[in-house]
Amino acid sequence: MNAEPVAFLNGSMVPASDARLGVSDAGVVLGAAVSEMTRTFHHRPYRLEEHLDRLFSSLKLTGLEAGLSHAKLTEVSEEVVAHNARFLGPREELALIQFITPGEVPIYARMLNRAPRDGPTVCVHTVPLPFGQWARKMKHGAHLVVPSTRHLPPECIDPHVKCRSRMHYFLADREAQQLDQESSALLLDLHGNVTETTVANFFIVDRGLIVSPSLSGTLPGVSRAVVAELAANLDVAFVERDFRLDHALAADEAWISGTPYCLLPVTRLNRAAIGAGKPGPLFRRILQAWSAAVGLDIERQILDGDGP
Amino acid sequence: MNAEPVAFLNGSMVPASDARLGVSDAGVVLGAAVSEMTRTFHHRPYRLEEHLDRLFSSLKLTGLEAGLSHAKLTEVSEEVVAHNARFLGPREELALIQFITPGEVPIYARMLNRAPRDGPTVCVHTVPLPFGQWARKMKHGAHLVVPSTRHLPPECIDPHVKCRSRMHYFLADREAQQLDQESSALLLDLHGNVTETTVANFFIVDRGLIVSPSLSGTLPGVSRAVVAELAANLDVAFVERDFRLDHALAADEAWISGTPYCLLPVTRLNRAAIGAGKPGPLFRRILQAWSAAVGLDIERQILDGDGP
Amino acid sequence: MNAEPVAFLNGSMVPASDARLGVSDAGVVLGAAVSEMTRTFHHRPYRLEEHLDRLFSSLKLTGLEAGLSHAKLTEVSEEVVAHNARFLGPREELALIQFITPGEVPIYARMLNRAPRDGPTVCVHTVPLPFGQWARKMKHGAHLVVPSTRHLPPECIDPHVKCRSRMHYFLADREAQQLDQESSALLLDLHGNVTETTVANFFIVDRGLIVSPSLSGTLPGVSRAVVAELAANLDVAFVERDFRLDHALAADEAWISGTPYCLLPVTRLNRAAIGAGKPGPLFRRILQAWSAAVGLDIERQILDGDGP
Amino acid sequence: MNAEPVAFLNGSMVPASDARLGVSDAGVVLGAAVSEMTRTFHHRPYRLEEHLDRLFSSLKLTGLEAGLSHAKLTEVSEEVVAHNARFLGPREELALIQFITPGEVPIYARMLNRAPRDGPTVCVHTVPLPFGQWARKMKHGAHLVVPSTRHLPPECIDPHVKCRSRMHYFLADREAQQLDQESSALLLDLHGNVTETTVANFFIVDRGLIVSPSLSGTLPGVSRAVVAELAANLDVAFVERDFRLDHALAADEAWISGTPYCLLPVTRLNRAAIGAGKPGPLFRRILQAWSAAVGLDIERQILDGDGP
Amino acid sequence: MNAEPVAFLNGSMVPASDARLGVSDAGVVLGAAVSEMTRTFHHRPYRLEEHLDRLFSSLKLTGLEAGLSHAKLTEVSEEVVAHNARFLGPREELALIQFITPGEVPIYARMLNRAPRDGPTVCVHTVPLPFGQWARKMKHGAHLVVPSTRHLPPECIDPHVKCRSRMHYFLADREAQQLDQESSALLLDLHGNVTETTVANFFIVDRGLIVSPSLSGTLPGVSRAVVAELAANLDVAFVERDFRLDHALAADEAWISGTPYCLLPVTRLNRAAIGAGKPGPLFRRILQAWSAAVGLDIERQILDGDGP
Amino acid sequence: MNAEPVAFLNGSMVPASDARLGVSDAGVVLGAAVSEMTRTFHHRPYRLEEHLDRLFSSLKLTGLEAGLSHAKLTEVSEEVVAHNARFLGPREELALIQFITPGEVPIYARMLNRAPRDGPTVCVHTVPLPFGQWARKMKHGAHLVVPSTRHLPPECIDPHVKCRSRMHYFLADREAQQLDQESSALLLDLHGNVTETTVANFFIVDRGLIVSPSLSGTLPGVSRAVVAELAANLDVAFVERDFRLDHALAADEAWISGTPYCLLPVTRLNRAAIGAGKPGPLFRRILQAWSAAVGLDIERQILDGDGP
Repeated sequence: MNAEPVAFLNGSMVPASDARLGVSDAGVVLGAAVSEMTRTFHHRPYRLEEHLDRLFSSLKLTGLEAGLSHAKLTEVSEEVVAHNARFLGPREELALIQFITPGEVPIYARMLNRAPRDGPTVCVHTVPLPFGQWARKMKHGAHLVVPSTRHLPPECIDPHVKCRSRMHYFLADREAQQLDQESSALLLDLHGNVTETTVANFFIVDRGLIVSPSLSGTLPGVSRAVVAELAANLDVAFVERDFRLDHALAADEAWISGTPYCLLPVTRLNRAAIGAGKPGPLFRRILQAWSAAVGLDIERQILDGDGP
Repeated sequence: MNAEPVAFLNGSMVPASDARLGVSDAGVVLGAAVSEMTRTFHHRPYRLEEHLDRLFSSLKLTGLEAGLSHAKLTEVSEEVVAHNARFLGPREELALIQFITPGEVPIYARMLNRAPRDGPTVCVHTVPLPFGQWARKMKHGAHLVVPSTRHLPPECIDPHVKCRSRMHYFLADREAQQLDQESSALLLDLHGNVTETTVANFFIVDRGLIVSPSLSGTLPGVSRAVVAELAANLDVAFVERDFRLDHALAADEAWISGTPYCLLPVTRLNRAAIGAGKPGPLFRRILQAWSAAVGLDIERQILDGDGP
Repeated sequence: MNAEPVAFLNGSMVPASDARLGVSDAGVVLGAAVSEMTRTFHHRPYRLEEHLDRLFSSLKLTGLEAGLSHAKLTEVSEEVVAHNARFLGPREELALIQFITPGEVPIYARMLNRAPRDGPTVCVHTVPLPFGQWARKMKHGAHLVVPSTRHLPPECIDPHVKCRSRMHYFLADREAQQLDQESSALLLDLHGNVTETTVANFFIVDRGLIVSPSLSGTLPGVSRAVVAELAANLDVAFVERDFRLDHALAADEAWISGTPYCLLPVTRLNRAAIGAGKPGPLFRRILQAWSAAVGLDIERQILDGDGP
Repeated sequence: MNAEPVAFLNGSMVPASDARLGVSDAGVVLGAAVSEMTRTFHHRPYRLEEHLDRLFSSLKLTGLEAGLSHAKLTEVSEEVVAHNARFLGPREELALIQFITPGEVPIYARMLNRAPRDGPTVCVHTVPLPFGQWARKMKHGAHLVVPSTRHLPPECIDPHVKCRSRMHYFLADREAQQLDQESSALLLDLHGNVTETTVANFFIVDRGLIVSPSLSGTLPGVSRAVVAELAANLDVAFVERDFRLDHALAADEAWISGTPYCLLPVTRLNRAAIGAGKPGPLFRRILQAWSAAVGLDIERQILDGDGP
Repeated sequence: MNAEPVAFLNGSMVPASDARLGVSDAGVVLGAAVSEMTRTFHHRPYRLEEHLDRLFSSLKLTGLEAGLSHAKLTEVSEEVVAHNARFLGPREELALIQFITPGEVPIYARMLNRAPRDGPTVCVHTVPLPFGQWARKMKHGAHLVVPSTRHLPPECIDPHVKCRSRMHYFLADREAQQLDQESSALLLDLHGNVTETTVANFFIVDRGLIVSPSLSGTLPGVSRAVVAELAANLDVAFVERDFRLDHALAADEAWISGTPYCLLPVTRLNRAAIGAGKPGPLFRRILQAWSAAVGLDIERQILDGDGP
Repeated sequence: MNAEPVAFLNGSMVPASDARLGVSDAGVVLGAAVSEMTRTFHHRPYRLEEHLDRLFSSLKLTGLEAGLSHAKLTEVSEEVVAHNARFLGPREELALIQFITPGEVPIYARMLNRAPRDGPTVCVHTVPLPFGQWARKMKHGAHLVVPSTRHLPPECIDPHVKCRSRMHYFLADREAQQLDQESSALLLDLHGNVTETTVANFFIVDRGLIVSPSLSGTLPGVSRAVVAELAANLDVAFVERDFRLDHALAADEAWISGTPYCLLPVTRLNRAAIGAGKPGPLFRRILQAWSAAVGLDIERQILDGDGP
């Protein structure tokens, strides 16, 4: 048994420190990769099936092959989590990451004077979640800024594919942080509609109604789907509808949902306060319902985290 | 002295087989990287200065830092080439590759329970050029197909940045090869103008005039600039102008220019013959002038290659 | 009584071989014409009323006048069918075609040194359906290819008008056949959404759900409406929703519906197999229900046809 | 020798009254045809070579074949003109028309229970020019109106192809005439730039400078090229530049150029007067230079015409 | 008590003749203002709360501050109406107008060598409604024309903000009136969809169904909402859906709704008759229901008016 | 003679404090106005002719009438300047403003129970330039921020019209200042190209070349034309070319030109430093040449100003 965390790479379990890609891999040369991130609750993957469904949908939409079945990837994922969870403290949790690339780019493989390795690169690994990193945002609210960099149009890559060609995300976040050091980017599409952040789905609350951009231009987030379920249970209206920045600025509340932290309030957008400038009451209701559903105080877990 | 080819990685020369990136590198996680590829003639880098100028321009436009000066990167590049050229046969040449990523993604670095490494990832490595791979295309012409996947609009990533978030290139080539197994993709922009292939600039010949798409939507190729220079020397008119697929289909000749092979004829576009369906006379004139300029028969080198 | 098939042309029944337009007709000079095609079952027009409703809607949207009432055109159409059906074999059926042009272009009428004929050109004629032509497609599936030529935007001609200015259809099919000889074109709109083929509406099946592009950019097909009715009767969900090529490529089944053959499976799109690469189970269910509704085995009729 | 005007149709000279197309011709079924119109001066075709060059370019861009060489089509055209000119009065002239369609649509050919005729439909015919029809416009100026119907975008049909799928022209002129009975349509492209009328190129005069829309969205008119030549001879500046309606409304003069009348002044645009509301001085200079070049008073010819 | 009508301006009641803005006000310098217009019935404001709700929404979306609460603005508005109604004849009614600008532009305030006045400009005033001005339109129908000037896209100003930067409305109406002296403009959006007139929402009737453009590109009119309510009460279907000009031209009826006149029939669009070319039966039903709801014959009031 | 500054309003000279517009003026109701601002040097208007040429061009493009000739407006303008200059200190200068609106909106004029005043509103007034307000920017550089609000597309209002419907400018500046309190907005067009600020033309310096956005989407600034002239005199290349934000961020220098201050350096864009983050050498050369041309140290005048 490994004395350090493991990763699954191209068919074998390896020490996490050996989870590396040669510079001839298409994931490095072209950013050609699809991926997923699932978090654990109580050290067990949460909604893993939905995440793997989306991964297999990403594979289908891009024509990539995993060379592994859904069942096998589930098994491997659970094995990696089970092993690596042993290295966690009691209040820590893991992010479980799968990614798949087309494998080696033939010309680049010549670097080592050998034929390219056949088949895709498949990697499963984990990362302890740095809850402390979101503590301040959970308490006071995250900041977002709309950069001039726009979301990729569907003519280029389908927005339902979770892929790793995200240079524009890097550019967008850089632009955002230049304008508000604590912020991350909220991307508009080419027509000026609000879409998502570089890592999260976005929501506003408008007179008691939860509104999130339509799925035609955003990733169908697993956490976003949880918000919709919880809202239905609480009899709070939830609608998908495209809207523009000024509507977000005039909202009563704003939130983002993402795998590692579930839900965070947004209190500044382009440095302007949203609503009362602090986490709103509907945010609290949804997050409490989520905590109840998973049997764990999500807010407390983040506030007590000590992250990076 | 290394008994195998070397690569430069983050400040050190390492055996090429150690040129690997951890799965926490932003180049792997986000495809966030800028890069260049230079080829050698007679085992010396060709137009290295232009390539590095473009690399530094890519860095500036994306806000990335290399942590190395232009001079230092030149020196390192030449050192890598000089070392690795020793492993070449007499008629072989190298492709010299530089790429730079923002370095480790902090959350992912926790995978190994350590703080992220500071600073960018800088890698310089080489690959022996597989001339044989282009022999058939040089002789009979390359095939191109226009896929439905479109080139990224400048609202997302500047077309003058040579970056590695190229999932859409992967999708485009896959679409093209589905339609013509021997082809690669010729991308249109969102408005239907011809831009470039996934690895090359594109040219057509229309009644003696060489036409290439304007630079507003394409990479300013170093080889493309050589074509312009050679055309000027030969008193052949060269213009930059946007055009559409039907004009390309009606052209007298078509070519692509790219670093490893310099210039290849294109004889099929969407499976239809271009002009007479074989390499054209103006193609030959330009390639011969290029050969003369570098003191080496480029066509012969490729036809004699044995590549992968 | 005519010893050959007849056509109705500008107020009179004429032998079909006399159904010709002078080169001064606006239908020839400008492609200015609206039209319909209805097929027979058991030698009786099928859903003629819906087809003529759409024809009169096309006339209204373009400001053209037929100079004939809906009732009169029904009567004439039925008369032409009744006469021409006598020339059919027992298993043959007719396509009934109506088209209307604005009549003669005055300047062109001078060709014969006379004043232009007044009023529109109205023609009703028939064609024996070449079922054999679709036999292979019915058995193994039709092929479609997405060309670079795009569907006309509504700013130019309303997509609900069935008109005869279809040069772009000719160009699209030519592009498609260059890429797959057996294929016809599946057109995208200017934004990259799937619309229709040059002669048919398009459907995909996604996890048991039948999806067809929204009517905002496609002709409201009479056969498409039948599919919706049949699906409702069978309790199969049918939705109108815009989607993109990659979703079509990832579909479980794909079909086209058109007047002469009712419904055909699509098994190749851009040369790639759709689903299992053969006609799917939901296709069969719908087509069987259709056969039951019209009291005739549609699939058999086509498989047994001997067409051109 | 024919005692009436002749036409060339599919390889033979026929009486003009027999120049008719079956309703199964692709020119009738799809509006799929490319065409040209040349006028005579002194009963000789004017700039026939340029017109046929453009026709062959249209054929190449659409993949149509004429089945006749440029030389042969010139010969046939001249023969038709020479014959038909005998039927003209001394001050009359001809319009010479060529059009080519892909030939019969196979399914439609079954109408007559026969195999489709092979090959394209090629027709050459003439029409006496109705000069009188333009007399009022020559004297007082033509009227134009901008309709909501827009010019076809190049994603659908290349604007350099002179084709006969012109339903949108019919719709545009109808809209225009609803708003000003004497007018014809001046089409904008999808972005609101002025392009051309349904039969002519458009020019404005702005402080002594002749401006015409760029060729990227308009047909490269042969008459337009003559205007450019004449302007150069007269040392009047001529530029191609996109402009919008308000600039046209604020112009000092406006004109249209077209084959049958060469050049007409435009004095009303959207019912508002252009400049002084009457033919302008630069219009007169260009038209007089044109008259001198062809040795005939073009204005007088039109003013004296008696057309329809 | 004032012996003439009053207005509220920046905190005080002033004689209406003193309701003037210095040329340094941002409302004059930039057209930066949001506004509302409410009409009276029986000298009492009608749906004032909805109008002020929309005003406060406009303020929120633009970041302007009124410096007055909703309640206070209601009070002031009612006071102005109560005072000014005394000057009305018995059958006259008032339009009540509120508008708010950001106040003085500092540089311009220097004109008078003084510091700028602090805070926004808030003005409330009234205008006797000139019913006679709409009498002819009520009786015979209003005329609309579609100009080439397009509605502002939401990327520039949110269409839900009722603001006073309406130069494009001025240009659109001017274009319309050039084409039909009695008309006003019906604006299309940048994609060619029908939106609204410069002062009213637009409706068509298509086979018994009332259709109005979706709110994504139009002001959510208070009168439009009344139409929807009345239609629901009468069990007439009302849908929001984008449509294009040709659908409007082919409609059975068309109407406009606006605060001062409630509802007017539209009988000419681009000079062409809509439906039977006279006010339609569904128009009458809705207007009668409206009259019943407010206890006053709206049609009669307008027909009897003597306006300007 | 007036003991205070005067303004010209609708035909008369009035005390500046009486330069007010009734709330029924179209300039207030619709923001319908065209305007110009000219500055003085040595108390004499600078390039007044160019400014008035542009004003008359704005009038022509919008169909507005001044009711005054160019000569008369020049005379009035000079009279206002001559009078008002007497109230200036020796180092002060004036901004001279002309604006023209269509006059009263008839319905609104009823507010005072009178017929509307006939004809346009024409106003000429002055404002002492607050040089001190730009002192900090001249010394350390101005800040710009790109807001999500976009420049009006030419489909709505011609960008060559200097008009006063500028609510989107107000919104853009507000967005910018939220992100950087000292900044003003740099607007992009709908396609993401850099255009201009709300009051100035924009320039970047790229390796010794001065680049300014093309005039197709920006106002043809009089100061911008001066920069072009001065650059030509100094043999510095100046080009008009569209570019995007990242190119501006990567520039060596950036400037803005505007009437009151002539030229200001820009040192921060989206809070990031441009070039060395301080006024650049080419900026200094151009400004010194300008100072020489007008016989006055422009930089000193601003640095010594005491503004508002």
